[in-house]
Amino acid sequence: MMLKSKMKNISIILYKPKYAGNVGSVARVAKNMGIGNIIIVGTSGFDCEEMQQRSTHLAADVLDKIRYCKNIEDALGKFNYIVGTTARLGKGRGPFISPRTAANDIVNISQKNKVALLFGPEDTGLANDQLRLCHSVVTIPTSREFTSLNLSHAVMILCYEIFIASSEATNTQEVAPTLARSQELEGMYAQIKTLLADIGFLNPENPDYWMMHLRRFFTRAGILSREVKIVRGICRQLKWYAHYKKT
Amino acid sequence: MMLKSKMKNISIILYKPKYAGNVGSVARVAKNMGIGNIIIVGTSGFDCEEMQQRSTHLAADVLDKIRYCKNIEDALGKFNYIVGTTARLGKGRGPFISPRTAANDIVNISQKNKVALLFGPEDTGLANDQLRLCHSVVTIPTSREFTSLNLSHAVMILCYEIFIASSEATNTQEVAPTLARSQELEGMYAQIKTLLADIGFLNPENPDYWMMHLRRFFTRAGILSREVKIVRGICRQLKWYAHYKKT
Repeated sequence: MMLKSKMKNISIILYKPKYAGNVGSVARVAKNMGIGNIIIVGTSGFDCEEMQQRSTHLAADVLDKIRYCKNIEDALGKFNYIVGTTARLGKGRGPFISPRTAANDIVNISQKNKVALLFGPEDTGLANDQLRLCHSVVTIPTSREFTSLNLSHAVMILCYEIFIASSEATNTQEVAPTLARSQELEGMYAQIKTLLADIGFLNPENPDYWMMHLRRFFTRAGILSREVKIVRGICRQLKWYAHYKKT
Repeated sequence: MMLKSKMKNISIILYKPKYAGNVGSVARVAKNMGIGNIIIVGTSGFDCEEMQQRSTHLAADVLDKIRYCKNIEDALGKFNYIVGTTARLGKGRGPFISPRTAANDIVNISQKNKVALLFGPEDTGLANDQLRLCHSVVTIPTSREFTSLNLSHAVMILCYEIFIASSEATNTQEVAPTLARSQELEGMYAQIKTLLADIGFLNPENPDYWMMHLRRFFTRAGILSREVKIVRGICRQLKWYAHYKKT
């Protein structure tokens, strides 16, 4: 029996795309590869004619269904697993995985989780602030001479690999459990950060340094919703205890 | 040791593309994936500004080097291995292989052979007349709801698979020998066809029916230049003999 990727659980998130033509092309790619959901964050008001021309009328339904969001936390809040993409391999931006490795993970995880594929603006790509929200970061192999892919081509490669992995996958592997949603995770991180700042653990000049390591650990471990609740309970208790001790 | 694909031996051939924007996008894709040669067959005079905009200035060198050819036989004559692409899976158009399978073959064959990746016009794709010239035909898996890919996306997928296969390949497999060039093959087929027509083997109403089967056999076997010469010698001798017998 095949372990079909639940394509309905996979969404493409475009963070601040600049060109209507690219948005149209992405809609076409999505339809070609069986993905129905696109969310655009931070930009809107694209030229309809240009979008439609590039999507072609056969992907008009995907284009019409695009959701627009003002900020990225709102867009990602309901997702359990977020895959970022980047061509810039700076230190602290990874660890990076290949589209093929990511695709195999995504087919498995998408059985019981909502997965977001996150792509940055055409000129700059995703910044560290957005990569921070991701569970894994994909980098698409290219010639060293020209590493920057057109937005719709990057979307195509990742979606194509997922489509192929989904038709090749078998159910011999264990299905990934339902992970905590991004919203829950971010709430937990905020609480941990406050606590660690309160007890003087975080350097006030660079509080995100240790937080980055904690984020990596939690996403690598694949933290579940009930585990987030436990961690938050512990944080609350620690806060109460620290306060009680002081008074 | 790695068995690097000789990217310089691989060319992208666009048969009668319609839109300047797509040509520009294909140039960008080629550069992203380390392919330097593009040949355009049967159309020319594309809007330069539109091509440049889509290729971006970083792929301007690939754009400038595009060769234009009037007919497909001239464009393909020097190639030893031609890979067609199609989304239409009609009978007699295959056998079809996946981009991944094709990519592994191409990495091997391109060590000692010039390989052409042939793509058809945006609206109709390649017709049987062009597929006939191909050694293998690739079909890119898509959702059943919308099987037609944008030209540059189709090029991207095939080139990406070649790029990946090239970096994963090892030299444990035997390197494919130098095959006969398309020009030599077509000369041989024309001679065989004339001979078979002369001896009354081919149905004059559909002479290509048996020829198609012969083409498939020769390309599957991977015929070498010297073998083409032998076959042509045999044909010549047969023709002489048939003529001599009659008189």
